[in-house]
Amino acid sequence: MKKLLLCFAIVPFLAQPLEAQDSEPENATPNSIVAASSAGEWVVIDPEDLLVMELAPDAQGNPRRVVIQLIPAPFSQPWVENMRTLARANWWDGTSVNRVQDNYVTQWGDVTEEKPLPEGVEAPVAPYEARTDCVATPEIGSETYTVNCFPISLRDIGDDALYTGNQNPGFSAGWPIVHRGAGRGANDVWPIHCYGYVGVGRNYAPDTGTGAELYTIIGQPQRHMDRNLAVVGRIIDGMEHLSSLPRGSGELGFYTEDEAHLRTPILSVRLASEMVDAPSFEYLSTESQSFAAYVAVRANRDDAFYTVPAGGVDICNVEVPIRRVGEAPEE
Amino acid sequence: MKKLLLCFAIVPFLAQPLEAQDSEPENATPNSIVAASSAGEWVVIDPEDLLVMELAPDAQGNPRRVVIQLIPAPFSQPWVENMRTLARANWWDGTSVNRVQDNYVTQWGDVTEEKPLPEGVEAPVAPYEARTDCVATPEIGSETYTVNCFPISLRDIGDDALYTGNQNPGFSAGWPIVHRGAGRGANDVWPIHCYGYVGVGRNYAPDTGTGAELYTIIGQPQRHMDRNLAVVGRIIDGMEHLSSLPRGSGELGFYTEDEAHLRTPILSVRLASEMVDAPSFEYLSTESQSFAAYVAVRANRDDAFYTVPAGGVDICNVEVPIRRVGEAPEE
Repeated sequence: MKKLLLCFAIVPFLAQPLEAQDSEPENATPNSIVAASSAGEWVVIDPEDLLVMELAPDAQGNPRRVVIQLIPAPFSQPWVENMRTLARANWWDGTSVNRVQDNYVTQWGDVTEEKPLPEGVEAPVAPYEARTDCVATPEIGSETYTVNCFPISLRDIGDDALYTGNQNPGFSAGWPIVHRGAGRGANDVWPIHCYGYVGVGRNYAPDTGTGAELYTIIGQPQRHMDRNLAVVGRIIDGMEHLSSLPRGSGELGFYTEDEAHLRTPILSVRLASEMVDAPSFEYLSTESQSFAAYVAVRANRDDAFYTVPAGGVDICNVEVPIRRVGEAPEE
Repeated sequence: MKKLLLCFAIVPFLAQPLEAQDSEPENATPNSIVAASSAGEWVVIDPEDLLVMELAPDAQGNPRRVVIQLIPAPFSQPWVENMRTLARANWWDGTSVNRVQDNYVTQWGDVTEEKPLPEGVEAPVAPYEARTDCVATPEIGSETYTVNCFPISLRDIGDDALYTGNQNPGFSAGWPIVHRGAGRGANDVWPIHCYGYVGVGRNYAPDTGTGAELYTIIGQPQRHMDRNLAVVGRIIDGMEHLSSLPRGSGELGFYTEDEAHLRTPILSVRLASEMVDAPSFEYLSTESQSFAAYVAVRANRDDAFYTVPAGGVDICNVEVPIRRVGEAPEE
């Protein structure tokens, strides 16, 4: 029998509903919980929030499509709007992937750095955190509570949630976020870098970048990136096309001139809302009962393979389940 | 100017000593601290603890060498000894990399699962944790203290260290480990999965595997793997040869029969102690002053690029500096 080293990062729609029906609660797995979720717990992603990037085919001629979900308000919207403008202007067409640094990032954009930007696309003077005037009233441990006017589910993460000290990770509208909790800076809330998440490249602070130069995390995310770089989205399909590229031998993983042939051409980047036959995706509501159960199981794996529960989970290891619309498992 | 998105995962010997000499403490970076460390703070790795794996050359004919450092006692030694036996028997020669699952693992071994193991190589009945009879006397916050007879540096990690709740991450003899701290199970200590760390593939519990089938983490490590799988080493050179391989389309990322051509042949695996011209590596002592400063800076980046310190660091993001002997920066 194959040494399986069972994996629970399988995309949700590969889960087996039978397993979900047969399993006792103590044997539930993240996949069985997702498979058992109800259709009403899923939220379709707005086509205005989907960017479809077509890379040049691989050496065998296979197409390489990458789908990026843009982060919703109130986070990073000046950069997100720049990205929509760049896509509508076909600006990324003919650019390339220019940097791949192992256990850090894959970065793409205009390698010449001379391509004129569309009118109106400028580096915004904007914060990496969101702030609101509404009063934060956190109740740690309760299923949900309101902070900065966002419903945040922390059920069963509690003290075992992994982020930096005295900061509370949670989920809002399908995205992992962090807030400072009650008291000190409770009305600060910010998005975080996880594997496959997309951010805006920039130069030295306070330059904040425009959104034309982007990167995605291809290793373990580093917390010092949060609040220092703009998180604008995440790869929800085709991540392997960016994570498996050859690493660059130049400083910071940039391809050297001798490696110019390794730069992956970007054929096009389009908003799904402007495409014919655009792909459609949905995510499991982070306010749903199934998501709360999913978090609890991720924090306390106890099944046929994993017999010593960790008692906690890094917020980035709670991958929000996302699937193509129409690809839910059969009832 | 290139959008740098400055990276601090650069291998230490790329750091610039001048930067270290010029920088004020508040401007120190992990690289500048490593560059300023003294030769006496580095520890040469025993050739008996190094496995050199030669993969088949890539499509352009470039050699692909991967160096694995084996974990020292008291962790996972029954598997580690099996690995030395397998290397001495040239057992891995002619095997291959058979599984690459994005954001999870790359796995290698005998795809036929019929290759006879050398005499004496059997799945050990052994714990994933280490236990000792000595008394734990932790003093959280102090620079170092003794628990389970290991010196563990926690200075400046403290409450900001990221692991699961009520468990304390630290470093012992160059490796990140976790213990339960004072009180409950204080004499339990275990190694953890980080990016590039190597573990033993197995079937369902309580099968513990032999060490012939191995995997390495190519994404964000998942805490539920700790204490459920044997951590036996880490990739210290050539990780990109395992992390940038094409992902398998089969279940769990195994290459399907149609993808048999994607399996990367393993030409040989040898113990450095049995090689002529074996590479030699050294690591920055995790009990050194420079390492303590390195941890503090990783937890509180505050420099020309990162201006909002995170106030914490995941233990796996504190990559223990490792370099080739003789490749220290010029004084």
